[in-house]
Amino acid sequence: MSEDRIRGAELAEAAVAGDRRALAKLLTAVENRTAIAEAAVRRLYPGAGSAHLVGITGAPGAGKSTLVAALIAEARLAGRTVAVVAVDPSSPITGGALLGDRVRMQAYATDDGVFIRSMASRGHAGGLAATSTSAATVLDAAGFDLVLLETVGTGQSEVEVAAAADTTVVLEAPDMGDEVQAIKAGLLEVADIVVVNKGDRPGAQRTAAQLRAMLTVTPAPRRAASSLGEGDDHPAPKRPEVLITTASTGDGVAALLAALDRHRAAGRDGLVDAARLARAEAQVWAIVSERLRDRFHGEASRPATESTLRAVAEHRLDPYTAADRLLASLVDPRTPA
Amino acid sequence: MSEDRIRGAELAEAAVAGDRRALAKLLTAVENRTAIAEAAVRRLYPGAGSAHLVGITGAPGAGKSTLVAALIAEARLAGRTVAVVAVDPSSPITGGALLGDRVRMQAYATDDGVFIRSMASRGHAGGLAATSTSAATVLDAAGFDLVLLETVGTGQSEVEVAAAADTTVVLEAPDMGDEVQAIKAGLLEVADIVVVNKGDRPGAQRTAAQLRAMLTVTPAPRRAASSLGEGDDHPAPKRPEVLITTASTGDGVAALLAALDRHRAAGRDGLVDAARLARAEAQVWAIVSERLRDRFHGEASRPATESTLRAVAEHRLDPYTAADRLLASLVDPRTPA
Repeated sequence: MSEDRIRGAELAEAAVAGDRRALAKLLTAVENRTAIAEAAVRRLYPGAGSAHLVGITGAPGAGKSTLVAALIAEARLAGRTVAVVAVDPSSPITGGALLGDRVRMQAYATDDGVFIRSMASRGHAGGLAATSTSAATVLDAAGFDLVLLETVGTGQSEVEVAAAADTTVVLEAPDMGDEVQAIKAGLLEVADIVVVNKGDRPGAQRTAAQLRAMLTVTPAPRRAASSLGEGDDHPAPKRPEVLITTASTGDGVAALLAALDRHRAAGRDGLVDAARLARAEAQVWAIVSERLRDRFHGEASRPATESTLRAVAEHRLDPYTAADRLLASLVDPRTPA
Repeated sequence: MSEDRIRGAELAEAAVAGDRRALAKLLTAVENRTAIAEAAVRRLYPGAGSAHLVGITGAPGAGKSTLVAALIAEARLAGRTVAVVAVDPSSPITGGALLGDRVRMQAYATDDGVFIRSMASRGHAGGLAATSTSAATVLDAAGFDLVLLETVGTGQSEVEVAAAADTTVVLEAPDMGDEVQAIKAGLLEVADIVVVNKGDRPGAQRTAAQLRAMLTVTPAPRRAASSLGEGDDHPAPKRPEVLITTASTGDGVAALLAALDRHRAAGRDGLVDAARLARAEAQVWAIVSERLRDRFHGEASRPATESTLRAVAEHRLDPYTAADRLLASLVDPRTPA
């Protein structure tokens, strides 16, 4: 552990000093959840907190990658540095997206103000959000002004990643099918800003109007869950703005950047602060949960525990009784399972 | 709790006796994770274990709901009873799917051998798999021969639900886009049987051939993770069969039912047993994790813990140090956070 701590600290220092290879190595460590990553995040965390973390999510085909490319261009024009964490099997980096996007991204290969990284969406549910949050911390500490978390918003874990951001953008395309419409409802709950992309298509205005109508009748969006009673001393969150962009031409992207800034500025009224507190709770629980999970799987290979689990598999013991026994042995390792 | 236990036992008895309203109420309790549900599952679990649990997953648009309807029809012809748990925003029950599917499902409104239930895909990641597994236990104990778990396979949680089944079917449609192809790779890892649906479309044979080629070069599918060293005394899992169906006409659906039976029969060689052991471990961990989570959120509202979390939110304390403190107070409640 001590060696890992030294290595983590070295990588952290180098990444903050602008060494892009060290940054890439550190993000690999974060992705693999190594002790090096933990040591680095422990060290970097106090220096992080200045970046604007923006989650970008939406159904496949809504144009997330193209919008991310357009946002990078717009942010660079405004003199800001941008890092992207793409937790998305269709990300340009992993090769799923259209060739045009990949070419667009390659334009930044020599620009030190842009850093793009894909993260595998494997691993157990919940772990994804923890890993992405750690990656965002590293990029934040490395000095990027804007950190974009891109996820394909069709599963609970992916939504959790996006919802862990300061500002969550949900992307829609005009007139997507019934099935996608249904997915939309769940996604809209986490949206701070809704973007109808492919604005040059005929249905764009109508889709935007429908979304505005939906957002008027449905309850105000719930932020990431927190037990801290944030509702008591903070104003209620505003209904999300609905914007139209055409990411492929850049139309509307400057307006989106401005909307992101407005949402962030609203943090001065406590909205983003509440999101940060909820994120801290989720982040700490993710670490606690992972440690307990490791402990549980350690227990599971002990003969006594294995026979308990086998009894459940063979329906001789119900899982709740087994859980009670294992919980006791987890909390107090002297208790035999 | 004692009253809940009595109510849970009553509902469990009634559900097993064939009372469909009691069964529906019990599944609502499972969905809401009440003490009644826990009491009922504790009681029903020893009587469960005879049903064949089949996970059916795939990208939106692959035709899952139509295939489920076709499988119901085929299973009923074979004299088997079928229950469906649809964890899918596009499920016919929640209204997302095509009208044709809903009409097809309504044909079973008066058939006691068919029971269809949708489950909301909300809630925290991981909880979804736990809830679905409990629902499957209830339906299994209620005597259904075949329990289908239908999920939209685009997120980690949804994949976990499907992977919790005895047999996991991954559905593909011919020539879906690049983006969907990429999602596919992750899904294929959990597949026991791969079905190319919409077999009447031109690309079906080619897609099936591509999938067979992919499955030959990629490593054998990983089953749901288990720490129990199942690989030691069980044969390696076989590569998944690739079948072609046209769910809308019923073509190939009898062959799919036969493939499901073959996969189940292979359980006698230990394959399905290994899956059941892994599922038991996952199921017990889900319950343990939920209890610890409740305890954590209980802790989080205590002033000492809240101030720890606030320090994390304000970047005065790193999340790992906070996690260490909270873990200690979780495991030993006398330790102040």
